[in-house]
Amino acid sequence: MPELRRDPIVGRWVIIATERAKRPHDFAVEQVAERPGVCPFCYGQENMTPPEILAYREGATAKNAPGWKVRVVPNRFPALMIEGDLGRKGEGLYDRMNGIGAHEVIIETPDHHRGMADLDDAEIERVFWAFRDRMIDLKKDPRFRYVMIFKNHGVAAGASLDHSHSQLIALPVVPKNVTEEMKGALEYYNYKERCVFCDIVHQELADGRRMIYENAEFVVVAPFAPKFPFETWILPKSHESAFEACRKNSYALLANAFRTALRKLHRGLDNPPYNFMLHTSPMLEPVCAHYHWHIEIIPILTKVAGFEWGSGFYINAVPPEDAAKFLRETLEHETAR
Amino acid sequence: MPELRRDPIVGRWVIIATERAKRPHDFAVEQVAERPGVCPFCYGQENMTPPEILAYREGATAKNAPGWKVRVVPNRFPALMIEGDLGRKGEGLYDRMNGIGAHEVIIETPDHHRGMADLDDAEIERVFWAFRDRMIDLKKDPRFRYVMIFKNHGVAAGASLDHSHSQLIALPVVPKNVTEEMKGALEYYNYKERCVFCDIVHQELADGRRMIYENAEFVVVAPFAPKFPFETWILPKSHESAFEACRKNSYALLANAFRTALRKLHRGLDNPPYNFMLHTSPMLEPVCAHYHWHIEIIPILTKVAGFEWGSGFYINAVPPEDAAKFLRETLEHETAR
Repeated sequence: MPELRRDPIVGRWVIIATERAKRPHDFAVEQVAERPGVCPFCYGQENMTPPEILAYREGATAKNAPGWKVRVVPNRFPALMIEGDLGRKGEGLYDRMNGIGAHEVIIETPDHHRGMADLDDAEIERVFWAFRDRMIDLKKDPRFRYVMIFKNHGVAAGASLDHSHSQLIALPVVPKNVTEEMKGALEYYNYKERCVFCDIVHQELADGRRMIYENAEFVVVAPFAPKFPFETWILPKSHESAFEACRKNSYALLANAFRTALRKLHRGLDNPPYNFMLHTSPMLEPVCAHYHWHIEIIPILTKVAGFEWGSGFYINAVPPEDAAKFLRETLEHETAR
Repeated sequence: MPELRRDPIVGRWVIIATERAKRPHDFAVEQVAERPGVCPFCYGQENMTPPEILAYREGATAKNAPGWKVRVVPNRFPALMIEGDLGRKGEGLYDRMNGIGAHEVIIETPDHHRGMADLDDAEIERVFWAFRDRMIDLKKDPRFRYVMIFKNHGVAAGASLDHSHSQLIALPVVPKNVTEEMKGALEYYNYKERCVFCDIVHQELADGRRMIYENAEFVVVAPFAPKFPFETWILPKSHESAFEACRKNSYALLANAFRTALRKLHRGLDNPPYNFMLHTSPMLEPVCAHYHWHIEIIPILTKVAGFEWGSGFYINAVPPEDAAKFLRETLEHETAR
């Protein structure tokens, strides 16, 4: 059973895997599922994954068989275990609990050779619906406090399988970064009686220098203080705390904004490794005036080093105004709306 | 002039470099000083760096000439500029200031071919004295609030030059990670009236499972909730807030503990890339009952991915008890005291 442990100074939780590292270098290989040449996420290999939790299919195709368009399965090498109780306990001054949680894989397309940037708006929309459906289902489990959805694309971004997929981890505690965002946003709200993200959207739309793209409901911007070169955020123009509470028609526009951002990054930076993270409100506070869900995309182009690890400061050699101009102009003729 | 910008949600500052990235990929190359085959940190190449700020020399050798044992120079490609005022100002809801600070390089040895793990106790001690002397000098500048000292060893850890060196960045704001540590430690102190780091030292000494090494004044431990496999902390056994306020004799014992930790990591993990970060109290709070300086060493063996970036959670496949046992036993016969 993996274990959750809390840093006693800053309150950061970590997941400690309990399978022993047999030799000092074994730990580096965290997820190796693939027999050479056989991909567990392709049609016909459905038995290589645990049984599917959700699949969108057209027509009458059998479960765990080809015919799906998006397929969600448990991670075969989960960081957390779905069965068991939390077993919270102390150990002297330290705090721990059992590593309970869900760890799922969202296979975005049956096509092994198309990355997420190659999918069309309708295909991307289907992936967002899968995120939403899984979040709504996992919210029913009273052990969970947060669902983190993310993607690792490319080896430098932590991907271990080529076939395009996202991941979902449901956690029994609200993670530190989310708590910090919620707290910062609440402080701003208490002071201004406005949502800081709404203010960001308004200022960016008026200013224009950090705008990358917009459609009727979403903006794509380079944030004012980005940690990483070409960091890109997608925010709904209207206030909405929880991703899964969006209006039905919004997902198509989100797909359009997200796909446009990905294609610009893919083309402009030559298929960079990247991560994206869906930032949404915690399960127990789904609707609030101060938090505003959004997606952050970070291309992995530089190394995080000692200064960043020690200080939490980041050094970014690309001003977001330059990054936004570059991405705005990349594929401009194709993406204008 | 580089610029410091504050994230309006979580309050993280970033350094935005203002030199334009000419092409989209240029930013990846942040520091290239070396003509092939000529190292700016070797004897005889002293004119390739800016004039030295500090050097420990034996006998009467000239400044900026061979004969030094440790040499401190300004970084030739500084992230921050030493000249100027802070120019704090708002831009709508955003906050910025000029990128004022010091960015220095501590060249740890004239020998190009010896890494820090190859240095002897006396050589390492000299490096710590250089850290201390620079901190004391930089504290005189009222613009600065914090001095972060760190090292990047190996390309994966962000190093751009092979020749063994550490770096120092003096900042006009207290960085986020330090503020968090100070705050967490103060909350613990207010509750318990004890320093959390002192409690950690006592519990680890009594427990033993996460101990790697100790001498008369320092412990080397695997922390209870490590972010990274084989993460290693060095803490003084007695309460001390500020690194630069250590008693004179402590630096020799620190050098012994630090060198032992580095050699164990170097041998056990086959010269891994690593970062170390010196965590010490901010300039304006040098002495306090709740904070306790320490050094954190993180070998870079795994990739940080979307889950970590989104959540602030870390997944660590090596329990610290296993890591400590492995490191305790590595070179055990050579390092027993």
